[in-house]
Amino acid sequence: MEIRIKVVCTSLCRSDITQWESKAQPALFPRIFGHEASGIVESIGEGVTEFKVGDHVITVFIGECKKCKHCISGKSNMCQVLGLERKGVMHSDQKTRFSIKGKPVYHYCGVSSFSEYTVVHSGCAVKISSAAPMEKICLLSCGAAAGLGAAWKVADVSEGSTVVIFGLGTVGLSVAQGAKLRGASQIIGVDTNPEKKEKGKDFGITEFINPSDYEEPIQQVVKRITDGGADYSFECIGDTGIVSTALQSCCDGWGVTVSLGVPKVKPEVSAHYALLLSGRTLKGSLFGGWKPKTELPSLVDKYLQKVLQLPLGFVLHLYKVSDFNEAFNLMREGKCLRCVMHMPK
Amino acid sequence: MEIRIKVVCTSLCRSDITQWESKAQPALFPRIFGHEASGIVESIGEGVTEFKVGDHVITVFIGECKKCKHCISGKSNMCQVLGLERKGVMHSDQKTRFSIKGKPVYHYCGVSSFSEYTVVHSGCAVKISSAAPMEKICLLSCGAAAGLGAAWKVADVSEGSTVVIFGLGTVGLSVAQGAKLRGASQIIGVDTNPEKKEKGKDFGITEFINPSDYEEPIQQVVKRITDGGADYSFECIGDTGIVSTALQSCCDGWGVTVSLGVPKVKPEVSAHYALLLSGRTLKGSLFGGWKPKTELPSLVDKYLQKVLQLPLGFVLHLYKVSDFNEAFNLMREGKCLRCVMHMPK
Repeated sequence: MEIRIKVVCTSLCRSDITQWESKAQPALFPRIFGHEASGIVESIGEGVTEFKVGDHVITVFIGECKKCKHCISGKSNMCQVLGLERKGVMHSDQKTRFSIKGKPVYHYCGVSSFSEYTVVHSGCAVKISSAAPMEKICLLSCGAAAGLGAAWKVADVSEGSTVVIFGLGTVGLSVAQGAKLRGASQIIGVDTNPEKKEKGKDFGITEFINPSDYEEPIQQVVKRITDGGADYSFECIGDTGIVSTALQSCCDGWGVTVSLGVPKVKPEVSAHYALLLSGRTLKGSLFGGWKPKTELPSLVDKYLQKVLQLPLGFVLHLYKVSDFNEAFNLMREGKCLRCVMHMPK
Repeated sequence: MEIRIKVVCTSLCRSDITQWESKAQPALFPRIFGHEASGIVESIGEGVTEFKVGDHVITVFIGECKKCKHCISGKSNMCQVLGLERKGVMHSDQKTRFSIKGKPVYHYCGVSSFSEYTVVHSGCAVKISSAAPMEKICLLSCGAAAGLGAAWKVADVSEGSTVVIFGLGTVGLSVAQGAKLRGASQIIGVDTNPEKKEKGKDFGITEFINPSDYEEPIQQVVKRITDGGADYSFECIGDTGIVSTALQSCCDGWGVTVSLGVPKVKPEVSAHYALLLSGRTLKGSLFGGWKPKTELPSLVDKYLQKVLQLPLGFVLHLYKVSDFNEAFNLMREGKCLRCVMHMPK
């Protein structure tokens, strides 16, 4: 049930770096990172009927078997068969499809797209229109989709509402775009990088807060400009400490906070109980709650119909394999949203 | 806009004790506790048109002004005018209506029902049918309503779902009853008091777990008997440490945890971020999210129509003012759910 994909474009997501640097989990070495990618099916394995050679696909780091309790539930994307793979092997036989001199080279998230060719379970690839530009659509493979889903599926942002977003990376800007398309009236972006002020406007940010400009706590600033707190807040930094700030930035009674980030340091989220008792909701989601195979094609179509914009203004395109290290440096220094790497043809 | 009420029955809620024993807030002394009560309007103050002398009422510790942003929102009971009063005075003028020899005696939660007569803002009393038995209906003034609301309004328990409830006091048993009336298929009660096993059955508990009987963590037991985690979990103990257990007892993808308790010790709720990232929701509510004036009368009617049962099996009735101390002791020792005190006629 596997397919081999010729990777055309693959982008670098912050999670690749977080995982690479992580001290919390045992290192798997050698390993091929990368999980946001577009490509073309090169060959198909036994049992695969869904794809044919030449199909355009995007990879997904959580698959969809369409048969397990979660896949058939209609309310979860946590597939029990093809869920997040953490051991660096394939779901089916717990082995690798890469090797060097007979020794295994481990996978990452069941995708491993920093490679000219990769093998994935057919449940971890989504067939897309061949009209979709490969170098752009790969962003829907993780970051942009995660942000849109957080706004639409998880928080279910309503028309006329107020929204505050902590962290204006690819995910945060995609949340902003999702909120804008839902008709939110006030979309506040919080980021310590002043360059994000102008960039944020393109994605719907109506007010920008740079915490460095204020002496008072940010939740207090947000409460003031939203008359008591926003309807929705989003943690898109990957800092669990900000979840409490995000909760406090929401209003009593119906405020919803969505935690999207994968923390780089402290894994515990904590908050004063009274924030919940006064009617707030704290939610999270992986990949914006999207069921990848069932729902991603509609996002690609929305992009092709120009309903959706992908955060391309910030994207750097790199064309040489040697540029991979450059991409890692640029992201760590916060100098790009996404580096899209074009694989050798 | 105030009314004087002749208190007929008042019950002791755990929050009265928590507040009395609290070291976290400055003590207010002398003070009259009590906030769950039924009574009869004795006299009405200037401006009150909603009540007349002789009306039967229940008191509410969060009022409803029907005019503020929250009251008109349709989605919040956090009234901005008559919300939870913490300073021991009346909302309107920040003064007390009780005194001894000219010195103020402080209120509690805007109600102070451990008294033969009390004065409340007219927004903190709800007119009910005179057919409703005073000694029973007072439980809807706080605990029983909080549990029902948590199941119906906050979690919105669905038919055929699985539910786990931590702590089978008045609130927990009312959650169970709410879940049963919604048609939940499995309602698991967790309590260290073995006597709650039989009592729980009356309110819909289908399985009972006494943590003392297990060596493995309770979340593991719950996951086993619910095939991967419950659809809903409720923290009704007032122990923030149990919130994480409750989250872990829920399933990935759509599990909802409701935190209802007011903690006696640690005010911080904490949980591993991955519990959220995998699709869980953590919510809280005060008074089950009910808008007291708008929605409580329908609960009273449901009781009169015998749709609702009030947790009377565990209720002790006390008739002498000197029994108040006895009531405090019984609740602290876990020997009763509620003590209903009948005030002198």
